Amino acid sequence: MSDLIEARVLKGFRDFLPEAEIERRLLTETLEKTFRSFGFVPIDTPALEYAEILLGKGGGETEKQVYRFQDHGGRDVALRFDLTVPFARFMAEHRAEIALPFKRYHISKVWRGENTQRGRYREFTQCDFDIVGTESAASDFEILLMMRDSLRAIGVGDVTIRMSHRGVFNRFLARLGLSGKSVDILRTVDKLAKIGREETLSLLSEIAGKAHGEEILAFIEPKATFEETLAAMTAAAGGPCPETERLGVLRAFMLDLGVSDVFVLDPSITRGLDYYTGVVYETFLNEIPEIGSVCSGGRYDDLASLYSKERLPGVGASIGLDRLIAALESLGRSRRSPGFARVAIACMDESLGGRYQAIARSFREAGISCEVLTEQKKPVQQYTLAEKKGAAWVLIAGADEIQAGKVTLREIATRTNTDNLSVEQAIALASGR
Amino acid sequence: MSDLIEARVLKGFRDFLPEAEIERRLLTETLEKTFRSFGFVPIDTPALEYAEILLGKGGGETEKQVYRFQDHGGRDVALRFDLTVPFARFMAEHRAEIALPFKRYHISKVWRGENTQRGRYREFTQCDFDIVGTESAASDFEILLMMRDSLRAIGVGDVTIRMSHRGVFNRFLARLGLSGKSVDILRTVDKLAKIGREETLSLLSEIAGKAHGEEILAFIEPKATFEETLAAMTAAAGGPCPETERLGVLRAFMLDLGVSDVFVLDPSITRGLDYYTGVVYETFLNEIPEIGSVCSGGRYDDLASLYSKERLPGVGASIGLDRLIAALESLGRSRRSPGFARVAIACMDESLGGRYQAIARSFREAGISCEVLTEQKKPVQQYTLAEKKGAAWVLIAGADEIQAGKVTLREIATRTNTDNLSVEQAIALASGR
Repeated sequence: MSDLIEARVLKGFRDFLPEAEIERRLLTETLEKTFRSFGFVPIDTPALEYAEILLGKGGGETEKQVYRFQDHGGRDVALRFDLTVPFARFMAEHRAEIALPFKRYHISKVWRGENTQRGRYREFTQCDFDIVGTESAASDFEILLMMRDSLRAIGVGDVTIRMSHRGVFNRFLARLGLSGKSVDILRTVDKLAKIGREETLSLLSEIAGKAHGEEILAFIEPKATFEETLAAMTAAAGGPCPETERLGVLRAFMLDLGVSDVFVLDPSITRGLDYYTGVVYETFLNEIPEIGSVCSGGRYDDLASLYSKERLPGVGASIGLDRLIAALESLGRSRRSPGFARVAIACMDESLGGRYQAIARSFREAGISCEVLTEQKKPVQQYTLAEKKGAAWVLIAGADEIQAGKVTLREIATRTNTDNLSVEQAIALASGR
Repeated sequence: MSDLIEARVLKGFRDFLPEAEIERRLLTETLEKTFRSFGFVPIDTPALEYAEILLGKGGGETEKQVYRFQDHGGRDVALRFDLTVPFARFMAEHRAEIALPFKRYHISKVWRGENTQRGRYREFTQCDFDIVGTESAASDFEILLMMRDSLRAIGVGDVTIRMSHRGVFNRFLARLGLSGKSVDILRTVDKLAKIGREETLSLLSEIAGKAHGEEILAFIEPKATFEETLAAMTAAAGGPCPETERLGVLRAFMLDLGVSDVFVLDPSITRGLDYYTGVVYETFLNEIPEIGSVCSGGRYDDLASLYSKERLPGVGASIGLDRLIAALESLGRSRRSPGFARVAIACMDESLGGRYQAIARSFREAGISCEVLTEQKKPVQQYTLAEKKGAAWVLIAGADEIQAGKVTLREIATRTNTDNLSVEQAIALASGR
């Protein structure tokens, strides 16, 4: 027996024990319910794809992190590292089968061989939702609203969604003659929250000169209200333009719906990626903003340009599940639970296995999860097991009681027994009726 | 633009478009609901593990099929090819954190580089449920019952669960002096349904001689009733023994619960794998038995012996989701659906985006999924889009109607409009109240 294999997972990978897995399931089920209520539909794509497809024109950080290898047929394959690239490939491949605009969500695992020192995982779940095939303000607005409603549904409705528009920023930079440096500038601004004003100014000055650096810093400063910020952005962009008009339309929608209070126009929001071309946004929990954005995204000009000539604009967002779960835990709103069974049926007599399942069936049919304990042990051991599994009640019945059609129900929290109950009475008691 | 990357998935891998993905989700959600009602809890494990752990003592067909490679740290890793081996590793690693008996389910993807010619996929979903840490008859029975109830819940309750006991077969072979050849014999018998009696007899005769081949063939023949088969098996095993007693207890449980009609004692059921030591079973849909077993499993003696000295007996089953989905489709009971939205709100005026979302919110709060169409196109185009997305109703309201608090509801199937409705009346109409 000395040649046992050591049971361990790879660094950066995790097992999910029932408590944690139940929490994740309940969370994603609630999110899915919200997405579905908006008419969004799920898709799924393979975990493994041609490396050429996932890495596209390739290069950069992504390529270093991706799990890539040769399969049995000598194909160069890789595990997906996000859900956006597979979605782009999916849309190019299935364009003819899909009616546009297309509203999809996708909740699945992705893999990145990242440095695990900063608490990062090499396997994690992404949760994306997008509307593609439309440039409408209504679609921008719907994603913003779904972000808000999804977070409310899971019990963290007190949020601030900080938003801006990449197009306005670009117009402003064009006016300063800095269009050629926009990628570097936007990436620098994106770090503002992390590195502070000083450092941002110093970096911007390096890229664009001190005077421009200060102008950019003034530009990204939010004013007192959405409207004032929009006015300042409009002036900085050289007057009204389609991009500032879009922000105005979105603001009108927010006011019409009565949800304006959660949205802040904040020109410092840029999202680092080149990918975004329109509105961009990040979401902060007002109770713990310091954990960073829990839901981010924006509008892009062309999803599938690597795979298709057909232009496919869209807008979407991604929820950071791990960060959200950590937040719910630190707010004391975690849904961790050891189990689903509300009632556990004690095994008082092994020969009654069929009878116990008959009683359990009555509970299940009444919508009460019911676990049948399978080992005839001392009652106190069975109570302890039931409690560990999260049950609120233990049902106790020996052969005589079964014969008489009577059962005893023990409330675990109070350690009190109620005996001489019919199964119907026990169901009523356990369901609090 | 000539350097587009061809959008395609790897052979043996699949995209799931909304119709197919919705079907899969609804199916697994229903199965999960059943599992949870029995008090089973979910776990998850990494897709990628140390190859040493997944391949164990290694060798054989599995090793050829597994996706195995070196990761960035030079570790020898592999994608899981089933959920049983990771579960064994999981139990060895987390034994101290888990109360036994432990009832878990696990629905996740697995990967095998199989030959795709026989309609096999290289990525597919497994759905396993097990009770470990017990040898009780009650746990054997619960798995059998959950198989039945799960299939009923998804609309294929007309099943036959064919079961046997590996221990009885082994006793019978020992009596014939064939213990040393039991692996080959059991594997041959396992092919009976596929290759027929003739061929089975011929193979058995090769292994064990003609006389023994005929005796084995007689042994595996089910008799008219469960009880008669059990009597014949008991005789063949050399008289009553713990294994035949176990079958008797399970039969008593079935009768007590009133579910005896779906279970057939069939000694030809062996499950090929060495792994099983006790009861074994396969499940056939009476309407299309020819597709083979849709849910199979059995009792094993020691789950985690490769990783732990602690003996961990258990019993479990696995549902073949792909096969089940194919069966539901050929029975016309598929839950394929283009979408979730019951009502689509037409975009009659782009500036009303906030108002449309306000109406949609009222529907959603009433439990009716509602999609807001985001493009102001001709009404007929919007009706067509709503229909493609599976909506039953289109809600139509321009600026004047919104002002007056009135909407029109169009039933897509009948192409009839009902106008001058309040939103509350529209909700009542769409929900069939």
